[in-house]
Amino acid sequence: MKRLLQSTALTFDCLSLEFKILDQRVLPQEERWLSIERPEEWIEIVQGLGIRGAPLIGVSAALCLAQWVCRQKPTSFAEIQKKAESLKQTRPTAVNLMRGIDFVMEAGMQGLSCETYLAAAVKFFEEDVASCEAMAVAGAKLVLSGDSVLTICNTGSLATVGVGTALGVIRHSYQTGHLKHVYALETRPLLQGARLTAWELGKYKIPFTLATDSMAATLMAQQKIQSVFVGADRIAANGDFANKIGTYSLAVLAKYHHIPFYVVAPRSTFDVTTRSGAEIVIEQRDPREVRGVLLASGYQSFAPPQCEVYNPSFDVTPRALVSGWVLDDQLLGENHFC
Amino acid sequence: MKRLLQSTALTFDCLSLEFKILDQRVLPQEERWLSIERPEEWIEIVQGLGIRGAPLIGVSAALCLAQWVCRQKPTSFAEIQKKAESLKQTRPTAVNLMRGIDFVMEAGMQGLSCETYLAAAVKFFEEDVASCEAMAVAGAKLVLSGDSVLTICNTGSLATVGVGTALGVIRHSYQTGHLKHVYALETRPLLQGARLTAWELGKYKIPFTLATDSMAATLMAQQKIQSVFVGADRIAANGDFANKIGTYSLAVLAKYHHIPFYVVAPRSTFDVTTRSGAEIVIEQRDPREVRGVLLASGYQSFAPPQCEVYNPSFDVTPRALVSGWVLDDQLLGENHFC
Repeated sequence: MKRLLQSTALTFDCLSLEFKILDQRVLPQEERWLSIERPEEWIEIVQGLGIRGAPLIGVSAALCLAQWVCRQKPTSFAEIQKKAESLKQTRPTAVNLMRGIDFVMEAGMQGLSCETYLAAAVKFFEEDVASCEAMAVAGAKLVLSGDSVLTICNTGSLATVGVGTALGVIRHSYQTGHLKHVYALETRPLLQGARLTAWELGKYKIPFTLATDSMAATLMAQQKIQSVFVGADRIAANGDFANKIGTYSLAVLAKYHHIPFYVVAPRSTFDVTTRSGAEIVIEQRDPREVRGVLLASGYQSFAPPQCEVYNPSFDVTPRALVSGWVLDDQLLGENHFC
Repeated sequence: MKRLLQSTALTFDCLSLEFKILDQRVLPQEERWLSIERPEEWIEIVQGLGIRGAPLIGVSAALCLAQWVCRQKPTSFAEIQKKAESLKQTRPTAVNLMRGIDFVMEAGMQGLSCETYLAAAVKFFEEDVASCEAMAVAGAKLVLSGDSVLTICNTGSLATVGVGTALGVIRHSYQTGHLKHVYALETRPLLQGARLTAWELGKYKIPFTLATDSMAATLMAQQKIQSVFVGADRIAANGDFANKIGTYSLAVLAKYHHIPFYVVAPRSTFDVTTRSGAEIVIEQRDPREVRGVLLASGYQSFAPPQCEVYNPSFDVTPRALVSGWVLDDQLLGENHFC
């Protein structure tokens, strides 16, 4: 077992149990690392969006639970189950969070030892790294020499503990010398593109240009980009998928401009119990997000204070608009779905 | 001649020459009126975006010049020409600004009297009101009973001295009882939708919902809107037109979703010397606009400070994507252009 787990977004020392996460709220202005000593601290940070990205939340929850078991040395499985449940309640709809906790708890059923929980959490961490790597290698084959690509939101090393999904493909294709340039959309309302993707591309010295979401169509019309890579939050049985609001718009615009539109996601994103996109419930988020911007320096409002707002957390893209899928086990054509 | 000119955006008293404009920088948080006593004040306010919107800039420039002539009583036409030129230089590419000043100067060639200039400026004001009214009445016929519509940027009584172009149509169709609801896009990067259109719709008690630009596609897919109304900055001889960045995206999305896409613009927007959209030069604006938000409370940055930015001031929509034109003289079908 590795002693020190390290990613762009977190570090975990298996001996000292020191656990630190990079506070994404203050990026890119500041690189502030927060120590997590107790599950309550992790819960507060996740609820306050200090870390986000489904895989990262799942892995960090697993590590957080293992740290707690190793430090508290609970004497009954029920006690651990109670703590596990409280972690799950942090974001009740986050599938990866459930998976991370369940993965550690299943291992824990074999015994109450600290090492059992720790080994499971480390394995979950390493599986995410391997999953990202598999997608990055597979997806990079879709980027031709000299291509520039467009992406939305943050799907990189701040959303996973590996290189990421869509942004992992981008990073790998730059390293292999094919990718020329990235256009990153700012991704209103929470600006993950402007804040996180821009920071990450800068950190890895990948040439990029930041644009507002409304500029994607013009970038396509001017042939500044050759393909679009996006992540996925949930993929239904028929191949329709939910992702960050703005993704569906890109899919339609890419189709119109005859530009390939690729989805990069781990197998764990598939939800076979959801038959199609029509069954995916789209939740509305806090209206203040659209009425202003939530920054490290505080909330800045610009719209009339009480005005009605439309703020779906994600949109649904029908499978027919997807040119290709980059998954962590194999590269599938559109015909995979039924 | 009217004694008092009044619009949502400005007031002008022809006897006392008192001239006030509503400071659009601090809307919607505050309704602050600024007195204009000298052309230098008008220039400073326009350059600082205290007022924007091509027709409003044109009309207010004409009034500003007339005020100066009436107060300073210049003794030579050359002196007035010099002042007129300094006003024109405020925004050298704004066609309406040139038209407003030229309109007053042409009248002035008949004599140096204050009344001549004043009467011309008042006529220019009234022509804008009448032009808006004609478009509003004509365009409202395109809104069917119970329709909800989508719009971008601010094209209302804060951009003209009348009811506006696209937003004028929206206002009139609400008054006639046809329009049900408006979806206003925030319009990054300068947020004219979130700040100005939202304020204006609220002021006129028209039910509306604010959304980010990236949400337009989902609004269309969910059949929440039945048509799109936009303004135009410049219309080429072949019918391609330039407008606020994000307009072209809406035109493509509307086409895909089989939703009518209407352009509302006065005849003065036509530029027959530009043959097609390909000839329209798209200028890049200050990169800081995309790296953050410019608010009444100051500039708030959120992206990495030096990151490269794409910030075209407008985009070009090909005529083929336009379902219909609402002009101030007549309603034309798509076949009007050659």
